[in-house]
Amino acid sequence: MASGIPIPMRSLTVKFHYNDLASIESLFEEHPGEIACVMLEAETTEPPMNNFLHKLQRLCKKNGALLIFDEMITGFRLHNGGAQAFYGIVPDLSTFGKAMGNGFAISALLGKREIMELGGLYHDKERVFLLSTTHGAENHSLAAALETMQIYQQQPVVEHLFRQGDRLAKGVNSAIAESGLQDYFQLAGKPCNLIYITRDQEKNRSQAFRTLFLQEIIKRGLIAPSLVVSFSHTDRDIDTTIEAIGESLNVYRKALAEGVEKYLVGRPVKPVFRPFN
Amino acid sequence: MASGIPIPMRSLTVKFHYNDLASIESLFEEHPGEIACVMLEAETTEPPMNNFLHKLQRLCKKNGALLIFDEMITGFRLHNGGAQAFYGIVPDLSTFGKAMGNGFAISALLGKREIMELGGLYHDKERVFLLSTTHGAENHSLAAALETMQIYQQQPVVEHLFRQGDRLAKGVNSAIAESGLQDYFQLAGKPCNLIYITRDQEKNRSQAFRTLFLQEIIKRGLIAPSLVVSFSHTDRDIDTTIEAIGESLNVYRKALAEGVEKYLVGRPVKPVFRPFN
Repeated sequence: MASGIPIPMRSLTVKFHYNDLASIESLFEEHPGEIACVMLEAETTEPPMNNFLHKLQRLCKKNGALLIFDEMITGFRLHNGGAQAFYGIVPDLSTFGKAMGNGFAISALLGKREIMELGGLYHDKERVFLLSTTHGAENHSLAAALETMQIYQQQPVVEHLFRQGDRLAKGVNSAIAESGLQDYFQLAGKPCNLIYITRDQEKNRSQAFRTLFLQEIIKRGLIAPSLVVSFSHTDRDIDTTIEAIGESLNVYRKALAEGVEKYLVGRPVKPVFRPFN
Repeated sequence: MASGIPIPMRSLTVKFHYNDLASIESLFEEHPGEIACVMLEAETTEPPMNNFLHKLQRLCKKNGALLIFDEMITGFRLHNGGAQAFYGIVPDLSTFGKAMGNGFAISALLGKREIMELGGLYHDKERVFLLSTTHGAENHSLAAALETMQIYQQQPVVEHLFRQGDRLAKGVNSAIAESGLQDYFQLAGKPCNLIYITRDQEKNRSQAFRTLFLQEIIKRGLIAPSLVVSFSHTDRDIDTTIEAIGESLNVYRKALAEGVEKYLVGRPVKPVFRPFN
């Protein structure tokens, strides 16, 4: 997805591998004094292994780089305070959004005082202008976020997400085992934030099989590009979901044996982020 | 305001002067084949002179650069179709917002089909990803924009802005003339989009005098960092505004004679965009 982005801008960023501290250490060595910050989602499908986040924090500090967490997805889901609260680590800056306003357009940049203050009025350094927007004074999203965050505090939202996600994962994993599809259809992520992985006969990731699965669950009244539960999902919702997935996995199993084309009605879906149509 | 913006990014942009075609010609000569687009507000305080916009369009076409209008302020104000409709010119791309949703957070990118299609699905080139947002499906802003644009079409909003702005400009200019302040307090911009300029004894732009003026109008119940009228402003609102400004200009005149410090209660306001506090 680099088309349209000037090369000088692309070259300002270098990439590392999650849970692979050595891959970040070597970047600091290759670009001494040039890395301003390390940005990452604190957790996506894979949890931090071997104290990865805390070690990364020490590595950043040693190299004078800021540690920035993107908590857009993890915020109010892993924990009301995001992955940083869940794992007991305080990044230098972090971003929240999505669940924060329960659908309303709002997001937040949080950070340590000494960094955030660079955008403020009480210093003599050059100003870093953190925010200037036309709709900065818009207030219905703020009202929605305040109300939403109050509900997160007063009601067991995160607990519910973990409980129902766990129930869902157990049910789906049973259905997978019954169909003997352990190597072809898999769940990943925390109970509160489940995704699924679809594989073909050769056990390679497959968009065709993903499409077949979507086709079959949609037939059964279920739209689920992922398996992320919400506070409104009841036990009954979860059970209905497990049932629809179980039935769909039977078709999946046949398609593995007889060929996915035989069962696929339309063309396979493509990933959202792709360089070509 | 460049603090925090990497030098390679800053060096991707070069600047020209509005209404000065030669300043753009020389940039095209200095950077042959390297200028992707020319971006500007089609009009701010100064109208296009000597067919500037049309000549700029020809210059861009000749050099293979896109012409992009920022119509955030001019859209639905100079004309329902923005400055491009007012001046009869079609830029390659343009942006609308602000008045479009009458306070709700919505904006639009418009453009010629062959450019906009690069973000779409019906071509074989590398994709240019124009939009991917969490809140892309948020709909109350869209509803607000549809309703607002319908009102612009059904009621004489733009005409009202021009008429009331004209009434305001005439009244304020009379007050300026009565106080003999023609060289010190001035209006600029179209009637629909008036701003004011404050000058000190040496006729230099002055934030201290701007602050004094703000102080005096606020005392008289008027908050006006600019003099941009809206559809809800009645004749009576305009007359009250002229009266408050007239009285404030009397204080302004005294401050010119006796020193602004004598009349200023607090410290002078600073411009929003400034490198240091």
